[in-house]
Amino acid sequence: MIKVAINGYGTIGKRVADAVRAQPDMEVLGVAKTRPNFEAETAIDKGFPLYAAIEEREDQFAAAGLDIAGPVAELVDAADIVVDATPSGIGAENKSLYEEYDTPALYQGGEDAALVDTSFNARSNFGDAVDADHVRVVSCNTTGLSRAIAPLREAFGVEKVRATLVRRGGDPGQTSRGPINDILPDPVTIPSHHGPDVETIFDDLDIDTLGMKVPATLMHMHSLNVTLEEAVDAAEVRDLFADESRLFLIPKHMSIDGSGKLKEYALDAGRPRGDIWENAVWEESISTVGRDLYLFQGIHQESDVVPENVDAIRAVTGSADAEESIQTTNEALGIGL
Amino acid sequence: MIKVAINGYGTIGKRVADAVRAQPDMEVLGVAKTRPNFEAETAIDKGFPLYAAIEEREDQFAAAGLDIAGPVAELVDAADIVVDATPSGIGAENKSLYEEYDTPALYQGGEDAALVDTSFNARSNFGDAVDADHVRVVSCNTTGLSRAIAPLREAFGVEKVRATLVRRGGDPGQTSRGPINDILPDPVTIPSHHGPDVETIFDDLDIDTLGMKVPATLMHMHSLNVTLEEAVDAAEVRDLFADESRLFLIPKHMSIDGSGKLKEYALDAGRPRGDIWENAVWEESISTVGRDLYLFQGIHQESDVVPENVDAIRAVTGSADAEESIQTTNEALGIGL
Repeated sequence: MIKVAINGYGTIGKRVADAVRAQPDMEVLGVAKTRPNFEAETAIDKGFPLYAAIEEREDQFAAAGLDIAGPVAELVDAADIVVDATPSGIGAENKSLYEEYDTPALYQGGEDAALVDTSFNARSNFGDAVDADHVRVVSCNTTGLSRAIAPLREAFGVEKVRATLVRRGGDPGQTSRGPINDILPDPVTIPSHHGPDVETIFDDLDIDTLGMKVPATLMHMHSLNVTLEEAVDAAEVRDLFADESRLFLIPKHMSIDGSGKLKEYALDAGRPRGDIWENAVWEESISTVGRDLYLFQGIHQESDVVPENVDAIRAVTGSADAEESIQTTNEALGIGL
Repeated sequence: MIKVAINGYGTIGKRVADAVRAQPDMEVLGVAKTRPNFEAETAIDKGFPLYAAIEEREDQFAAAGLDIAGPVAELVDAADIVVDATPSGIGAENKSLYEEYDTPALYQGGEDAALVDTSFNARSNFGDAVDADHVRVVSCNTTGLSRAIAPLREAFGVEKVRATLVRRGGDPGQTSRGPINDILPDPVTIPSHHGPDVETIFDDLDIDTLGMKVPATLMHMHSLNVTLEEAVDAAEVRDLFADESRLFLIPKHMSIDGSGKLKEYALDAGRPRGDIWENAVWEESISTVGRDLYLFQGIHQESDVVPENVDAIRAVTGSADAEESIQTTNEALGIGL
């Protein structure tokens, strides 16, 4: 069993903890948090040993009636690998801790690509992370783009990618974010950081991305254009995507018109937290005009990187190859079944 | 003085009435409405003769204390031109009325292009409407795309246009429209109707468009990609656009991050209803990557077609050429000053 420490138990960390626990070859050694809140309560309720990410704050947990197993350094020392799911920029600050205890670490997409040995998407470059010490699981949007681009590159060749990312303003729990009733170019300057970030996965890819923010919390929506190296029928792309376990093709007969119904479908299906780990590609939207492919895909910002973190654990620990890991993760979570 | 009848006094009609009244060479002969409401009240208050668009409903206006000047047929008969600003599809039903009285007519972008002799955008194809009997002023989004594309075609040549239109779900007064907290592919199928609609202005243009709807009411936002026939510096595009009176380049120093601040700026400037008649192009967003141009532009759905309707009146009545009409309209409204 791979002993996994999870440093940061917020939106991503708590989902990774549950996903790791569901795997047949991993266990959650403990989770670390900076302060007591409803998530810390839940961690205790779920039986995850809770560590204080900041030792001086152990008192705060005690005052809240939450038992602390110890300081985060103990957890890091005992683990085979750490998943750092702290807010952007904190992962970089934590790197020296992981190095001190010689524990390999995963970081999230908010960290700089230069921090790590390689950036990671299971479908696209699993092999690059094998036996690496510091690996960055790319952001939700970069993950979503990479999953769609990888099979297209292999099957048809990609000349250029142009994508407009219409991003949710904040997650449902992020009550101080906006916009309200507005559509913001964000960033106003072009390209957005997403294009260069996808190039950390495919270093020879030509991609331009534009970002916006809108008053929605449920999912991002991508308007994706891929100029292929050959003219392809839309049906060929649909067939290609249907074979990809982490691309969910929304069939027309489901009458799912947006993120709201998608989430409702996931909740009806009994998925934890209504998570949508796959890219949600509207099958009807897949269209080709000559060599230009177009489609819409919904990206669940809170969860699509979760299976990627699980696979990255296996890559870094050298415990499975890409195909075996992806299949194990999918089966354990219920992806593509 | 060109005697103008306005049939339909809602979002577009009321704005066109005010804009026509502001012109030195036109007068509003009257406006027609189907039922009494706050807009009918305002028409009376502004001194516009109010006609009943449906003769049988004259009683309803009387009951609301609103004086009716007569049935709409009288207005059409007496006018030099009718601006039909009725809801989509009603303009087509009204065409026979205008033909009966041999009064040329303008229709709005919701009507089918096949209904009319030509579709119209002042900057792009003014001449096509000269002395035509039935002319369609294209929709807000098509107007916005055409204004940006016309100068690019002339200056650099356009190989292909790809645009994602992130559309406001409804106008501020449309209280039963959605979405709330969602990002909808709309239509899910690609291309959206906007691309073919732009081709009614430029019949040899290669353009693919994708549409979405989001929880915002103030403006549409376009993510625009134009593959030019030659590589161009972004600065050249900015200089080109700066000379276009109906493209407003938002300078960085204004700190306008979205539709909300744009509208606030327009209201602070004393513009009627806070209208933004120009395309609002974020100057910082204008970027080129080889032959690919990218930019963001905000399109005020309630008002950008208003100056176009005014210019179409002059085209149809043969009373001015494009340059003279656009200049007169701009000066009367305060565009580009």
